[in-house]
Amino acid sequence: MRLSSKDMLGLDGVSKEEISLILDTAKTMKEYLNQGVKKMPQLQGKSVVTLFYENSTRTKMSFDLAGKYLGASMSAIAASSSSIQKGETLFDTGKTLEAMGVDIVIIRHPMSGAPHFLSKNVNAGVINAGDGMNEHPTQALLDMYTMQERLGGLEGLNVTIVGDIYHSRVARSNLHGLMTMGANVTLCAPHTLLPSEIEKSGVRVTTDIKQAAADTDVVMGLRLQLERQKSGMLPTLREYNKYFGISDEVMKYAKKDALIMHPGPVNRGVEMNSEIIDHSDSVILDQVTNGVAIRMALLYLLTRGKSDDNN
Amino acid sequence: MRLSSKDMLGLDGVSKEEISLILDTAKTMKEYLNQGVKKMPQLQGKSVVTLFYENSTRTKMSFDLAGKYLGASMSAIAASSSSIQKGETLFDTGKTLEAMGVDIVIIRHPMSGAPHFLSKNVNAGVINAGDGMNEHPTQALLDMYTMQERLGGLEGLNVTIVGDIYHSRVARSNLHGLMTMGANVTLCAPHTLLPSEIEKSGVRVTTDIKQAAADTDVVMGLRLQLERQKSGMLPTLREYNKYFGISDEVMKYAKKDALIMHPGPVNRGVEMNSEIIDHSDSVILDQVTNGVAIRMALLYLLTRGKSDDNN
Amino acid sequence: MRLSSKDMLGLDGVSKEEISLILDTAKTMKEYLNQGVKKMPQLQGKSVVTLFYENSTRTKMSFDLAGKYLGASMSAIAASSSSIQKGETLFDTGKTLEAMGVDIVIIRHPMSGAPHFLSKNVNAGVINAGDGMNEHPTQALLDMYTMQERLGGLEGLNVTIVGDIYHSRVARSNLHGLMTMGANVTLCAPHTLLPSEIEKSGVRVTTDIKQAAADTDVVMGLRLQLERQKSGMLPTLREYNKYFGISDEVMKYAKKDALIMHPGPVNRGVEMNSEIIDHSDSVILDQVTNGVAIRMALLYLLTRGKSDDNN
Repeated sequence: MRLSSKDMLGLDGVSKEEISLILDTAKTMKEYLNQGVKKMPQLQGKSVVTLFYENSTRTKMSFDLAGKYLGASMSAIAASSSSIQKGETLFDTGKTLEAMGVDIVIIRHPMSGAPHFLSKNVNAGVINAGDGMNEHPTQALLDMYTMQERLGGLEGLNVTIVGDIYHSRVARSNLHGLMTMGANVTLCAPHTLLPSEIEKSGVRVTTDIKQAAADTDVVMGLRLQLERQKSGMLPTLREYNKYFGISDEVMKYAKKDALIMHPGPVNRGVEMNSEIIDHSDSVILDQVTNGVAIRMALLYLLTRGKSDDNN
Repeated sequence: MRLSSKDMLGLDGVSKEEISLILDTAKTMKEYLNQGVKKMPQLQGKSVVTLFYENSTRTKMSFDLAGKYLGASMSAIAASSSSIQKGETLFDTGKTLEAMGVDIVIIRHPMSGAPHFLSKNVNAGVINAGDGMNEHPTQALLDMYTMQERLGGLEGLNVTIVGDIYHSRVARSNLHGLMTMGANVTLCAPHTLLPSEIEKSGVRVTTDIKQAAADTDVVMGLRLQLERQKSGMLPTLREYNKYFGISDEVMKYAKKDALIMHPGPVNRGVEMNSEIIDHSDSVILDQVTNGVAIRMALLYLLTRGKSDDNN
Repeated sequence: MRLSSKDMLGLDGVSKEEISLILDTAKTMKEYLNQGVKKMPQLQGKSVVTLFYENSTRTKMSFDLAGKYLGASMSAIAASSSSIQKGETLFDTGKTLEAMGVDIVIIRHPMSGAPHFLSKNVNAGVINAGDGMNEHPTQALLDMYTMQERLGGLEGLNVTIVGDIYHSRVARSNLHGLMTMGANVTLCAPHTLLPSEIEKSGVRVTTDIKQAAADTDVVMGLRLQLERQKSGMLPTLREYNKYFGISDEVMKYAKKDALIMHPGPVNRGVEMNSEIIDHSDSVILDQVTNGVAIRMALLYLLTRGKSDDNN
């Protein structure tokens, strides 16, 4: 089996089978990583470019290492340098990269839909590493991988996501992926940070974190963009932490051994207290490792599709 | 046969035989690229550094990929970071890179002659990736490659270059290369953007774009540095486009199937209208691909010269 | 024999045997470099990250090339981009890199002790590439390598270090290393640039450069941070050069053929005059080459320790 698309633009519309294929492939990749195998030939002769119009360390480094571990030739374009500043259109940038022989473009962009636009205009594979407030599919995939690895499966799982849902592409991708995989999702945030009518998508919504945590298998915090506070969408950070911070107290309402997750980097003392970050049920660092495995899996699956038609 | 110099500083003074050798080698490289072969051993164990004192995406990425496709170890120094800011001289930077075992330095510098200065002071090979208003030889080589590939040869070809000739290192390198190869060059620009007495070099000069396009095989637009406008060298962009923009209307004067070229990135609606950029006779993306092949060829020829004396 | 630590944080407390092991290993590495061998398999499958919170070209490039020459997968994080700006703690950055499978973190940080903090919190190896005013051990190792290569040994050697001792991590690391190896160290600086009570560590201290140079085997200049002048710690640069600049005149007091050293980049005409930098006894460029060899040796020794327990 293989992915139906040359791209990974988001989890909206991606089937259960495809998600399972990615998670299964990542499992193999993680076994290699666990054995310290970090020089493999699967992407040798493939050229991969990270095209990041927003700063990032984690995601970019994770993709960079994933590509290098598989033998790809990795190059990076940062929006702060580059002819991008000369006003070149994304269309022209994409066409140019493709003409240079690039096989996969990994794009992060502040505008929702930028990866989809790029994808339509190039034959190269496009991976969305975060577009505006839309999707961040590899984050959701690594989140689901982590849940499945720890809890045995996703079907019927109760997953609680706490924080700035409104602005979060991580939440949006998780919502699509988790619902496709049969999990029950609860969202918890201040009213100002909840998308309107989000209940219609079939999730449970609450502003009470204890209620949100009740009987859940997973509590996932979202990173708070501290600049939001200025815009009046947030009370003080102290108040946020008091009502929406994930603490030992909150975790008492969850199932025993419920997982504690966060895409990172955590604002310590805001979304979570330090005791929670370093808790034995915290899988935040597992998420990081699994992120590399997921990205290796995707790079492998997307390039295999193009060069090796008999498998 | 091999190149007579350890460097590629410009096309001024480079012989017809040497240009032909580079173009022929690039042809082989392009065949590999067309077959998707992007992991070759020719530069394995060679260390190549891009030393860019001016921003660039295309040229830098093109060199980076060219080196990686041939197995070189590629490193980058950007002028915006680095001890260059601490006031280190180009002399010391060059000596330092050489002492670290660097085989080839690819330099872009705002001052004309910087690559020549570097070349005199290091044994490493130096490739000029653009120096001030002087030369940008790899761009001209890829332009000539593209013309030869499409039109069968350069001898007797009519090539029209339109735009800011005065500030253009692309134009200057093309002028040297094309005249060496026996092409007839016509330059077209507003008076303020033409070097004085340029006619003496043997080119035809006109300020009338229709006259410039008449019976030509190639119309090449140059990128307009939009900041020039402020200095009073240009009327409005709209006026520039009206009198010097390459359009369907202009192309009617050229030979049937005449090539449309541009070093990129194009200011859409200024140097060319979108209908021209995406025209079936536009070879702008071919130029990008050929740029990788030309740079692979140069890296190969310049390092072969030093390590492999029996071939 | 192998290194006792997974890290190289400083030379304070490193034994004579360990320093000798590193210098001997570097000798082998340099032999490879001299033969033009720059593609070796020792670090294949190892992942190395440079994490630089201060700008640097030389040191970063030197580590980058050293890693690449040994086949490591090299990645870079610059503090100016990155989630470091989002306020992530060094603790979290380190944990994240480790979770991604990084084997060695090479860190430069403006705060003394940052590498030690990192080292305690990750299993990955940590190499200090300069921390505040504390240590810069690889620079001192390459300095000692250069002295040993040229003068046959370090025991009993007279080494004079001239310049801003107070702020210099290079001086501090050299002091530790050289005294461990049995050399006699003389420090020479204006009173304002000498640490108080430094004599107690067993070095000779003087503010008279001629006296400092008398009968010495090595005169090492330190880079003057020109911004210090503003803080009133320095007279004019001209005066500094007059009293503390290393010149032909000063070198007359030293032993015949005494080595002239500097970590680079040199402020020409301040710490040294050009005639001295380019003098036949100047080994400044040897230091650069030896820096690559030393860093290769360290990368090799630190990763061998972890993956290959039978050697």
